[in-house]
Amino acid sequence: MPSTNHALNARHRLSYVRRVAVVGVGLSKFGERWEAGLRDLIVEAGVNALKDAGLEGKDIEALYVGTMAAGRLIGQEHIGSLIADWMGLNPLPSTRVEAACASGGLAVKEGFMAVASGMYDVVVVGGVEKMTELSTSQVTYALGGAGDQEWELSLGATFPSLYALMARRHMYEYGTTEEQMAQVAVKNHKFGVHNPYAQFRKPVTVEQVLASKPVAEPLKLLDSSPISDGAAVVVLMELEKAKKLRDELVEIIGVGHATDSIALHDRSTFTGIRASSIAMEKALRMAKIERDKIKVAEVHDCFTIAEIMAIEDLGFFPKGQGGRATEEGETDLNGKITVNTSGGLKACGHPVGATGVKQIAEITWQLRGEAEGRQVDTEYGLTHNVGGSGATAVVHILKRLR
Amino acid sequence: MPSTNHALNARHRLSYVRRVAVVGVGLSKFGERWEAGLRDLIVEAGVNALKDAGLEGKDIEALYVGTMAAGRLIGQEHIGSLIADWMGLNPLPSTRVEAACASGGLAVKEGFMAVASGMYDVVVVGGVEKMTELSTSQVTYALGGAGDQEWELSLGATFPSLYALMARRHMYEYGTTEEQMAQVAVKNHKFGVHNPYAQFRKPVTVEQVLASKPVAEPLKLLDSSPISDGAAVVVLMELEKAKKLRDELVEIIGVGHATDSIALHDRSTFTGIRASSIAMEKALRMAKIERDKIKVAEVHDCFTIAEIMAIEDLGFFPKGQGGRATEEGETDLNGKITVNTSGGLKACGHPVGATGVKQIAEITWQLRGEAEGRQVDTEYGLTHNVGGSGATAVVHILKRLR
Repeated sequence: MPSTNHALNARHRLSYVRRVAVVGVGLSKFGERWEAGLRDLIVEAGVNALKDAGLEGKDIEALYVGTMAAGRLIGQEHIGSLIADWMGLNPLPSTRVEAACASGGLAVKEGFMAVASGMYDVVVVGGVEKMTELSTSQVTYALGGAGDQEWELSLGATFPSLYALMARRHMYEYGTTEEQMAQVAVKNHKFGVHNPYAQFRKPVTVEQVLASKPVAEPLKLLDSSPISDGAAVVVLMELEKAKKLRDELVEIIGVGHATDSIALHDRSTFTGIRASSIAMEKALRMAKIERDKIKVAEVHDCFTIAEIMAIEDLGFFPKGQGGRATEEGETDLNGKITVNTSGGLKACGHPVGATGVKQIAEITWQLRGEAEGRQVDTEYGLTHNVGGSGATAVVHILKRLR
Repeated sequence: MPSTNHALNARHRLSYVRRVAVVGVGLSKFGERWEAGLRDLIVEAGVNALKDAGLEGKDIEALYVGTMAAGRLIGQEHIGSLIADWMGLNPLPSTRVEAACASGGLAVKEGFMAVASGMYDVVVVGGVEKMTELSTSQVTYALGGAGDQEWELSLGATFPSLYALMARRHMYEYGTTEEQMAQVAVKNHKFGVHNPYAQFRKPVTVEQVLASKPVAEPLKLLDSSPISDGAAVVVLMELEKAKKLRDELVEIIGVGHATDSIALHDRSTFTGIRASSIAMEKALRMAKIERDKIKVAEVHDCFTIAEIMAIEDLGFFPKGQGGRATEEGETDLNGKITVNTSGGLKACGHPVGATGVKQIAEITWQLRGEAEGRQVDTEYGLTHNVGGSGATAVVHILKRLR
């Protein structure tokens, strides 16, 4: 269905009534967690987040959870009530939010608005996915539901193939190389070594990436994020109340969220994700800061080409220059913008619903100065979470409060 | 997992910053819609709602959609971006909310908070489910994901069987009869005749209900809501802006949302749904009105016993008296509280994600005096949407503004 442009011009308040702080974050270990079910993973992350916040269950007023495909992956819907139950927190209101691989980021947005609206002062936002119960081909099919089931998946277009089309076009139009894409994986694996929660804590070389098995050419196994189990939880609190809780606070100062056509073939371009650009503009306008204040970002690198497109779409580099910027180290530690210090989806792992929440956790650690071995000195950080092949993008801008 | 009680006492603001009106409502025809896919259904309802509101796409700032099991039922996730796309509204932000059969009601709550928060002035909330692509047994299995997959569904406990357990216990404790349950179906089918969008527009008799095929004894086919395709859409607007749009306004003055253990066997009672009672108390306290002001209610009658429990849990009748009250006509037109004038889930149909939004549409028609053939004269109305066997309940209280 053709996109309309009017919504770009639609008035958007870009304002909200009450300010919101991140007061606690926690992750489960990401990886192939054969011993843990979905409910165990979220409890593991939740306990860590509450401990970090110095809060107990009785302090919480509402829950949000981002999960993409639990119905397909483990036969379980109604994840909101499930997590309230297993965290021992019912009858608290609990809400599941879904936007494919952007489910976690969108859950954070909903939690933000729940506090901003005045309905709640303290909200816990989780993200979780349990992906290793099924075979790889079954998981690939379930994830295909993030695109257009009728016009893509049913005709064989899985996600690796859609991103491979984007990669080919980016190579054709801008001269981006497979080596440059491999550099994304090398950088993110290097960061992953320092993240105790990451699925892969081992470095890879450009040669290893290039020699890895093709998934959907030109994308290879080591260009691709893995199938992962994991959960992430953040605790949000109304700012004035948060100031009484702890000294080191991180505020969410910008929220951007946009959509695009669900099918890739309906887009105006294959070399970028328009929803990312729009979400970024909205977040910046709400935050009232310039882009170049931001020195650390978690972006959605489901495939290496996705990180290259993201750093362009978010405006950190001109369109077409993302590959070269990566090659020149501009996204490495203390480059122009340090990208994916968590290891990204690539090395930290990509339990789909957890990813957008994990990004908030990583940036919170960065802004609090707790990102050991991968620390960036910055007052502002950004998260960028994409759903499907770009039909949803969610951007958050976070600020360290001194 | 055992429930904790502390959350009942947790401070809940029960306040919000900006007031929210319903300015337009629309439904698709409910039923076995072989000719229409999920995306067609939501567009059909959306066009009706925008027409009712006198608005166009360009006036909208954000979308919400409640859908339970599209992943299992049609292989499609990422429903938020799908509907923005097919309504021609991308790049508007669009969010899917899921809480099993309460997905629609919860989407309305999220839309309410999005406006209350100051983030948006005009939000469209949809609910949709396309259920007739699969066989009845496949659909039953998909819906089983609303309960505890590990401890109920995997052991054979489908939803009819869980509600049958509740019915048996209600009969045992309170002397509720199969005839009284049948009366719920008779009343709701009678109302359904007057609802042009209803799946079933034909009356049934107590004898027909009692003679219908057993589904899970004591529940019979005509005690059960059907498998349905359908969509519902409501348009929410900040109140001051809404006053400039139209004269006949309905305001959402109370929102209540609560959870309980996802598995029935962990509950403190089988004869009622605690989450419903808690959600009702919260909604009443937010609305600052007495329960007896409310003269019309849409309640969650997925099975006839569910309506009997609901009118008790919501406090309209004492626990155990719901069957008798139904028998005596107290929930019929102009009874103490008129219940399910849309036909309820029973006769209007139950496209799972659509139901909670359809309830808001029906109460809006009631409060505007547009419920032809089933009109109740009242200033206040209520909606009550349940997920699973009671692990989520969402209550909204609506008021007619003169």
